[in-house]
Amino acid sequence: MRSYLPSELSAHQRHDYLLSTIGPRPIAWVSTINEDGIVNLAPFSFFNIFGSNPVTLIFSPARRVKDNSTKHTLQNSGNIKECVVNIVSYDLVGQMVLSSTEYPDGVDEFSKIGLTAEPSDLVKPPRVKEAPAQYECVVKQIIHTGEEGGAGNLIICEVLKMHFREDIFTEDDKIDPLKVDTVARMGGLWYTRAKEGLFQIHNPKGHNNIGFEGIPEFIRNSEIYTANNLSELAKYEALPTVEEVNEFIVSDYFKGRTQHWHLKYKIAENWSQHLITEGKVKEAWCFILAAMKDN
Amino acid sequence: MRSYLPSELSAHQRHDYLLSTIGPRPIAWVSTINEDGIVNLAPFSFFNIFGSNPVTLIFSPARRVKDNSTKHTLQNSGNIKECVVNIVSYDLVGQMVLSSTEYPDGVDEFSKIGLTAEPSDLVKPPRVKEAPAQYECVVKQIIHTGEEGGAGNLIICEVLKMHFREDIFTEDDKIDPLKVDTVARMGGLWYTRAKEGLFQIHNPKGHNNIGFEGIPEFIRNSEIYTANNLSELAKYEALPTVEEVNEFIVSDYFKGRTQHWHLKYKIAENWSQHLITEGKVKEAWCFILAAMKDN
Repeated sequence: MRSYLPSELSAHQRHDYLLSTIGPRPIAWVSTINEDGIVNLAPFSFFNIFGSNPVTLIFSPARRVKDNSTKHTLQNSGNIKECVVNIVSYDLVGQMVLSSTEYPDGVDEFSKIGLTAEPSDLVKPPRVKEAPAQYECVVKQIIHTGEEGGAGNLIICEVLKMHFREDIFTEDDKIDPLKVDTVARMGGLWYTRAKEGLFQIHNPKGHNNIGFEGIPEFIRNSEIYTANNLSELAKYEALPTVEEVNEFIVSDYFKGRTQHWHLKYKIAENWSQHLITEGKVKEAWCFILAAMKDN
Repeated sequence: MRSYLPSELSAHQRHDYLLSTIGPRPIAWVSTINEDGIVNLAPFSFFNIFGSNPVTLIFSPARRVKDNSTKHTLQNSGNIKECVVNIVSYDLVGQMVLSSTEYPDGVDEFSKIGLTAEPSDLVKPPRVKEAPAQYECVVKQIIHTGEEGGAGNLIICEVLKMHFREDIFTEDDKIDPLKVDTVARMGGLWYTRAKEGLFQIHNPKGHNNIGFEGIPEFIRNSEIYTANNLSELAKYEALPTVEEVNEFIVSDYFKGRTQHWHLKYKIAENWSQHLITEGKVKEAWCFILAAMKDN
């Protein structure tokens, strides 16, 4: 383990270690407007949702580590107190990165990077028409966390109106993550495309699960099961009873899977692991206990 | 486009649409301690870093949408004003989900879910020894954004000490995202494993790029190039000159790739697109302009 006080690392290295471990970070593609009506568009990965009632978003145009300068977005948010947070799908990632260019004042950023500025309904800055979701926001509060390079400026926003592209919905009016196809920021030059790493996990039901403590030692100490496998076993509310295991042993299900080989315990472990990854946790429990009993 | 005021959606549907579009969200696996010394561990995806100097993290144990209840983490953070934010790698995701169980008071959550409680150096709550990164924090401020179900509670933290597992470092003391192997939360039951969707993009250099505006119409309007391809062309500071294109046409590079086919413009477009995706943007520019000239 390498341990550091923040002051023990250079600003650059500290920034790098933090951004390499805290992620993937969702991206706010923020449009703002200055007092002369000039529009700015820039991406921020110090961003997330923090509540849905009121809908609260925070993003942070931090002071630059290299020269302690601040961004147009921060100045505009402070002056006009409105913004639009647009969401970035994979097909827009190149334009999003291009929008991190600090173009000289007066450049129309939407034209410059080939996007359509769609007028907002309730705020002055326009939306990115191409974005899969667009959130019109009022700036509630700005908190400056420090005055040196790297200091965060927390722009706390309340969403006034939400817009979703028609094609991200399923037929039953849900939003499909494969269709939204978001990208997120990681450390260095790395980004990630969320849909390529998708998987599902069910939350535990109630609070009576057996936990790791309730798993017999011979299973916990096995070299076969991963911690994720054991977590599925641990979500169970109670081990199968002796009767259930006995019933399972004489079932066609068990016999059909064990008749062709002299049941080796290791094979049974592999089989029960396979059942866990298929979501058949009750069968996995019965299988491993039946196999142990049979040996 | 479907557009809504927040009040036009049910609390449940609003929550669902927001969480399906704002993501992937990094996960803070937060350990806290109450006044009796009982440790709590729970995951929060309303979380991110917001500045690196001071190191500022925010997470939000929001009021539950279903019954407006609050979590132990919120109470503990308010009372003791310290926490540890642990980072979740893929091999810990099952235990992280298990830790969202609200076990009765007095249950030792670390034993219950098979984790090792490592004493912290500067704060009272222990760290998760197995986590790839662990941030000891002091709670600077808590902002309650509302009193109804879904309301966020912004726990604004300053990191006092950072711990990184030895095996996430490369030989030259950088942190390798493949080794950290973070997971993140999306809508519904969805999670994503960041390393499966990794890709890199270089930021534009300076602010003199030609932008989409500087790309000739016949290229912008081509059906071959994606917006991401065009973004790479747009990052360029200036189109190749007539002389550079003429030189390229007589180069072995160009001749070697065009000698076996009568140069069709569409094939040239496909070839230049291939060059773009390989990061050879100058060659792509020369190729497309040379091919056009040659036709």
